[in-house]
Amino acid sequence: MGLNNKRSKKISANNDYYMFGLHAVKAAIENPKRRKHELWISQNARTKVFKDNKIPNIPIFNLDNSKNLPISENKVHQGVILKVSPLKQPDDISEIHNTEQPRLVVILDKVSDPQNVGAITRSSLFFNCNAIINSLNGGSSENGSLVKAASGAFEQVPYIQVANISQTIVRLKKFGYLVIGLDENSTNKISSFEKGSSDIAIVFGAEGKGIRRLTKEHCDILVSIDGNHNFSSLNVSTAVGITLFNIQAN
Amino acid sequence: MGLNNKRSKKISANNDYYMFGLHAVKAAIENPKRRKHELWISQNARTKVFKDNKIPNIPIFNLDNSKNLPISENKVHQGVILKVSPLKQPDDISEIHNTEQPRLVVILDKVSDPQNVGAITRSSLFFNCNAIINSLNGGSSENGSLVKAASGAFEQVPYIQVANISQTIVRLKKFGYLVIGLDENSTNKISSFEKGSSDIAIVFGAEGKGIRRLTKEHCDILVSIDGNHNFSSLNVSTAVGITLFNIQAN
Repeated sequence: MGLNNKRSKKISANNDYYMFGLHAVKAAIENPKRRKHELWISQNARTKVFKDNKIPNIPIFNLDNSKNLPISENKVHQGVILKVSPLKQPDDISEIHNTEQPRLVVILDKVSDPQNVGAITRSSLFFNCNAIINSLNGGSSENGSLVKAASGAFEQVPYIQVANISQTIVRLKKFGYLVIGLDENSTNKISSFEKGSSDIAIVFGAEGKGIRRLTKEHCDILVSIDGNHNFSSLNVSTAVGITLFNIQAN
Repeated sequence: MGLNNKRSKKISANNDYYMFGLHAVKAAIENPKRRKHELWISQNARTKVFKDNKIPNIPIFNLDNSKNLPISENKVHQGVILKVSPLKQPDDISEIHNTEQPRLVVILDKVSDPQNVGAITRSSLFFNCNAIINSLNGGSSENGSLVKAASGAFEQVPYIQVANISQTIVRLKKFGYLVIGLDENSTNKISSFEKGSSDIAIVFGAEGKGIRRLTKEHCDILVSIDGNHNFSSLNVSTAVGITLFNIQAN
């Protein structure tokens, strides 16, 4: 019984997973910090992935001849599947704070859909964000769908999952961050928001639910995106893209 | 042989499909123009969908007891599946032109991913666009994934698939539209774009490929979104959201 318990712990501690998609796998191969274990690749994808890259010293399988792929058939793998370990992320938000100023951080309050988190990662790299913070409980962990949607960007943007979003906000405020919450009920419009020179953290809630009450109370200001809130709402990853564009452009 | 041919034509002319997801199905039930055929619904979803709606007079099945659902298991149906006919869309772009001014139209140059087209539909409603135009050949048709991602917005935004995007642009220009193409290589930044009072059409290309050369040549101006193009690009639905926000806010 004791032995069984130990074994199952060891198995669950191994979070290796399969990533797929040309951009995602190419970026992982180019990332020296990414631990790679096994590669399935088609002849066609080989020329794209290894044009500028050395072939890694791991077991490689010909995907064209493989009948049993390690991922389900409905995943759009584009001819490449790579078994990897999750990236080692900063242990604490204070590590983000060691980057150059002014800093811009995206906080996700329990955003669970990996495709949304992936698209948010892609936008965060495009708009030079320093990190993404998501909930440990209820936020998406690193996985194949997330990394595919991030289209290579996950290798470059720190992704930190924290136990308590409110406490994290309190700490960022102590570091001097201005904390802005996106709330569709706010009458403050983001288009009239003027950013100063301070570090900024922007908080987004889960789809359908928005930011939780306690999280909202910790924000310095709440803003909404100008638009037709009566009939529609935006996908959370679109909302993040618009907000980052607006913060960066003004 | 003749009979068989007729039969198969009749079958392929029937484009009925299954939509799923709470927001999508609720909006379809509320839309008098949507032809509905069969409903699978869970007890839990019933209270959400029929809170403000009359139960439609179609066959209804209890989803909780159904072992064989009409859609694959990996679809997140949220307790509702509705068999519908595709919406009747305007036959021609001149019909959009009969709406009030100034008009704003989104043109998609072979955007094939239904989830992207769905998220674009959602943003288009939020930013009061008059229509979305996509390629007939290579653009996504109306289907369950598109309508789910649109989160109800597909019932309200005209979606027109055309055989020739370039010819459509030429016609819109004759109507007086200013046609803006999104091109990541353009040095014109969208943040410095000043819109006048004219009708506007904005053209977006397929992911990875961008706008095709011929389509690009027909645009009045090309612009790019301000950001870090060296390391990353944006998801097309995020790019649409940012562009519509910027056009609408300035």
